Amino acid sequence: MLLGATAHADEVLGTVSSPNHAISVAVERDDGGHIAYAVQRNGKPLIASSKLGFLLANAPQLDIGFTLAKKTTSDHDDTWEQPWGERRYVRNHYQELRLELVQKELNNRRLAVVFRVFDDGVGFRYEFPDQPELPDTRISDELTEFVVAPKATAWWQEAGEKAALEYSIRKTPLAEVGMANTPLTIRTEDGTHIAFHEAALVDYASMWLRKVDGQKLRAHLTPSAYGAPVERHGAFTTPWRTMQIADNAAGLYMSDLVLNLNEPNKLGDVSWVHPSKFVGVWWEMHLENSTWGSGAKHGATTANTKRYIDFAARNGFRGVLVEGWNLGWDGNWSGSGSSFSFTQSYPDFDLPALSAYAQQKGVRLIGHHETGGNVARYEQQMDAGYQLYAKLGVDSIKSGYVTDGGEAIFPSADGGTHFGYTDSQEGVRHYLKAVTEAARYKLAIDTHEPVKDTGLRRTYPNWISREGARGMEYNAWGNPINSVDHEVNLVFTRMLSGPMDYTPGILSLEGVKGRPINSTQAKQLASFVVIYSPIVMAADLMENYEKYPGPFKFIKDVPTDWADTRVLHGAMGEYATIARKDRHSDNWYVGSITDGTARTLPLALTFLDPGKRYVAEIYRDGEQADYRNSHRFDIVIEKQTVTAATVLQLKLAPGGGQAIRFTPQ
Amino acid sequence: MLLGATAHADEVLGTVSSPNHAISVAVERDDGGHIAYAVQRNGKPLIASSKLGFLLANAPQLDIGFTLAKKTTSDHDDTWEQPWGERRYVRNHYQELRLELVQKELNNRRLAVVFRVFDDGVGFRYEFPDQPELPDTRISDELTEFVVAPKATAWWQEAGEKAALEYSIRKTPLAEVGMANTPLTIRTEDGTHIAFHEAALVDYASMWLRKVDGQKLRAHLTPSAYGAPVERHGAFTTPWRTMQIADNAAGLYMSDLVLNLNEPNKLGDVSWVHPSKFVGVWWEMHLENSTWGSGAKHGATTANTKRYIDFAARNGFRGVLVEGWNLGWDGNWSGSGSSFSFTQSYPDFDLPALSAYAQQKGVRLIGHHETGGNVARYEQQMDAGYQLYAKLGVDSIKSGYVTDGGEAIFPSADGGTHFGYTDSQEGVRHYLKAVTEAARYKLAIDTHEPVKDTGLRRTYPNWISREGARGMEYNAWGNPINSVDHEVNLVFTRMLSGPMDYTPGILSLEGVKGRPINSTQAKQLASFVVIYSPIVMAADLMENYEKYPGPFKFIKDVPTDWADTRVLHGAMGEYATIARKDRHSDNWYVGSITDGTARTLPLALTFLDPGKRYVAEIYRDGEQADYRNSHRFDIVIEKQTVTAATVLQLKLAPGGGQAIRFTPQ
Repeated sequence: MLLGATAHADEVLGTVSSPNHAISVAVERDDGGHIAYAVQRNGKPLIASSKLGFLLANAPQLDIGFTLAKKTTSDHDDTWEQPWGERRYVRNHYQELRLELVQKELNNRRLAVVFRVFDDGVGFRYEFPDQPELPDTRISDELTEFVVAPKATAWWQEAGEKAALEYSIRKTPLAEVGMANTPLTIRTEDGTHIAFHEAALVDYASMWLRKVDGQKLRAHLTPSAYGAPVERHGAFTTPWRTMQIADNAAGLYMSDLVLNLNEPNKLGDVSWVHPSKFVGVWWEMHLENSTWGSGAKHGATTANTKRYIDFAARNGFRGVLVEGWNLGWDGNWSGSGSSFSFTQSYPDFDLPALSAYAQQKGVRLIGHHETGGNVARYEQQMDAGYQLYAKLGVDSIKSGYVTDGGEAIFPSADGGTHFGYTDSQEGVRHYLKAVTEAARYKLAIDTHEPVKDTGLRRTYPNWISREGARGMEYNAWGNPINSVDHEVNLVFTRMLSGPMDYTPGILSLEGVKGRPINSTQAKQLASFVVIYSPIVMAADLMENYEKYPGPFKFIKDVPTDWADTRVLHGAMGEYATIARKDRHSDNWYVGSITDGTARTLPLALTFLDPGKRYVAEIYRDGEQADYRNSHRFDIVIEKQTVTAATVLQLKLAPGGGQAIRFTPQ
Repeated sequence: MLLGATAHADEVLGTVSSPNHAISVAVERDDGGHIAYAVQRNGKPLIASSKLGFLLANAPQLDIGFTLAKKTTSDHDDTWEQPWGERRYVRNHYQELRLELVQKELNNRRLAVVFRVFDDGVGFRYEFPDQPELPDTRISDELTEFVVAPKATAWWQEAGEKAALEYSIRKTPLAEVGMANTPLTIRTEDGTHIAFHEAALVDYASMWLRKVDGQKLRAHLTPSAYGAPVERHGAFTTPWRTMQIADNAAGLYMSDLVLNLNEPNKLGDVSWVHPSKFVGVWWEMHLENSTWGSGAKHGATTANTKRYIDFAARNGFRGVLVEGWNLGWDGNWSGSGSSFSFTQSYPDFDLPALSAYAQQKGVRLIGHHETGGNVARYEQQMDAGYQLYAKLGVDSIKSGYVTDGGEAIFPSADGGTHFGYTDSQEGVRHYLKAVTEAARYKLAIDTHEPVKDTGLRRTYPNWISREGARGMEYNAWGNPINSVDHEVNLVFTRMLSGPMDYTPGILSLEGVKGRPINSTQAKQLASFVVIYSPIVMAADLMENYEKYPGPFKFIKDVPTDWADTRVLHGAMGEYATIARKDRHSDNWYVGSITDGTARTLPLALTFLDPGKRYVAEIYRDGEQADYRNSHRFDIVIEKQTVTAATVLQLKLAPGGGQAIRFTPQ
């Protein structure tokens, strides 16, 4: 039997719209005091009645018997400046509805829910106040639903497995989603695009989305084997649950909704964070030409690193990443076998000397902290590792949490350790702590095997990049390698959440044993523009850059910090064209990529300053270029004078792309 | 980056087939030491390579680096007798493969997996030995997969919500399953039927099935907010993961695989368990004619109960259930508000007098323990409640765990309480404890809002029935009421797991305020045969039985304990015809039900003894019978002399059925 399973009449507690009135949100209450929200756009149902609420482990359910205690509406419109990013200025314009709810039958226990509606989407979060009825909150289930009304297709990444972030992105009917990570992007039958995600994930479990039935998704909090998924003391707010909404894929990308829902910069002056490009001792290990571990083929040697420092200096790269520099890479280094030192290098790697050598040449070493997923151990050594780098003038670190499909290791309250998901509340706490501690030493962090990006780079601008998806390394040894549509899949899913250290630029177009990758050379160049990160690795061996000086020039020229970004073309999983204006000059850059289908895309240069003439340095697929055969190397490099009135035709080969640099004459 | 994500060659560790060789199972190991199994039937892939293993909270992962330490095969063929059930004798015939695995790199940690293959399906379980490497096991994730090879349709019940067992059964493509409870039944494109379930769920979390991608399902252990889903000390075995496999729906139902994988009867003599029918003070409360709580309309009064005892005695019903007899039904009685007494009745209900009165008339009261989901409180009072009933000669109890979509309340180690799922390991422990404790007092238990049935009635034959699906009560007040295909949906899903206290026999064909139910009268009668339970409630008000003496005769005649059962017709969600032979006479009974579609089904009476003549008392839909209008009451009752050579034509109306009693002349 079920109590209360009778027909309900719904009472509207409040409504709120976007500034342009296209999107409207209604929050309703039924006879049993259940609360739900619904979203309409342009007068049509987009999100059908979707529940709100929680089940708690330490107190009665927080999902029934609610009445409205107080309703507040407000609006907000300001523009703020990013210290680095895809654009300099971001407008934050929304209308807000705040509902304070009370459960009368449960000692007037309170919960608030806040909705902010922008022209480009909706965000909402819950607020738990300080109250004697609930001094501690242990959330066993978050019941938030997203019931998509019109039939839709979904592009999603599997969640619930330790390395699922590195699976390929799937495309299925929304009804065939299983357990998905976010961003989860959908396209409805009438072309509306929605990206489901969260903003400001702090001290809370990461939210996966579980398909319940039909097109109903429900929040699924990353579990912990040592307690409830979320445990908080006193007042707190949940992360924002976000829905970026647009008429097309390009519109999704153009939205800054997730950044807008994050807290402003807490670090103050961050001039010590340097958007830049880097090279390094890395790809050669993935190609199995050298090893991370010690021995005759050790990659991270003083001599090899000097070669890369010299190369970087010659070619204007600020950074040199070196992996395998520190003790611990021999034997089983992942998980409980992890025995990395974060202060001691192998005997054949002279860290202080190399750091000094690099700085003399205007280059910086990039630090590397691979933890093997052993968070417990890393937290004991992290401070010493940071101090060492800070002392030596290494000002950024790439971190890693590689496990072999296993779990990370966390410290237990009793001094021991236990296993858990990196997406859990304790994992989320650790990742942020690594960033805030690094900020004390003016260190920037690039996290690999990370928690999802939820826009915290606004609050902590030293969190410069992360992996969090299937990267270029799979093209070295993957089984399978990245599919030809992988990058276009990333753009309107993973890339909606924030920068990715994708490591493009494999001009050799091959992985281990010469196995070809699914790309043309022009697509490798275009990726520098299309796949955003403030720090970008030109990943190939230096020999391959020296072999292809023509294409390499684009890599040398392209910046990584932007005044403005425009998405000019985009279709989920098919193609994308992005134009970006350099923050430090009047140059513009365009990158366009396609999947396995050849395309001709008209590129109107209306983003250029009117009345000015520009030299366009064009790097395009040759007439016969094709990722499937040796013509993947066919690239044409040419110049053309253009103005804002010009329309270029971008002819993209199968698996191809195009990269263009526009310099005012 | 992922370690080991390169191409693997698979090594076959062992194979095992069904006795008739139609089904074969292979267990394989890849280069990384991951273990997987696959199932073929009639030479075609049925289950594609599906992973095995676990992630642990307190130790490294139990899913990689395995090698085979020992392999054993054996076979088994015996026949055992049930003290009650759908048939008297059950054949247990299988071939077994036992693999002892070792993780060399993890101190030779061991795990065994055992497969038993029957002609009617496959069962496998894991065995954790006593070992110093793992004195305690805290399972955070069971990684068992079921990758269905051929495209399939699924009939499934949602899981992951507190009352999800009472949702309607859904039919979708298998790829559109979200999180399902078990049994989950599928039908592949070539007609093969598989029911996924588990057997012998003891001291472990209940297994849900989560669709991962495509047609891959993975075990999802019911979580606990206070620890890992499963925590065990020393050696233990997991429940059996089962796949009943047949060429048609009827074949699924005929399988005793789940019972065969359970331990034999531990209780010895169970002659104190009485398969029988009952009536009671129950439906009137669901109709809102009376109340569970005290007051002018209190249903559970001495006078009203006497009426039902007299009615039961007059009509040969052994039991009278009375709900609302005990203090605690006033106000908010569910969850943390629960304040039931299990020993004190309301002043207007004289339990000792009524129990004596009943027994004088050859009738027994059926006890009622509604817990409101407050397991912590119930466990404190359960023994006193059992003692009281035992003393008074009440020999069976219907229990309940009603929450309003919230969670049950469990005792915490520190003496407090916490909330959790009834499907969790602690819930599973409680339900079995209630049954084993009841056995000490020779009490039989009928559990409502239960854990799923996994065949433990073999080991504890006092666990006579349970709800665990959407029952007849939804036809009183449900929103919506049960659909016309609900019963046929139940037969080849829920009913594969064991008896259901469905409470059929609403001859009035209506719920609250005369709202009609989706059934004809003949279907109500047929349900007594089709929906199996050793204890069956004739649920309607006595007045309605007195109003329809013709149909009521069938209800009075039909037994509830069987020597044999044959499924003669069956199609998922469409129709089912079951024939059963009374255990205590030579009578046979047939029940046939359909969904909203009228059907004529040929019924060959070959199950009757050859050479004998039988009188068939037929209760069938009238010519114009139809569940959608007043003709739902059209029933024809007639007699016919038949033999084993007769073929009857069962004409079922829309929403109809047919019930027949065969008595040797």
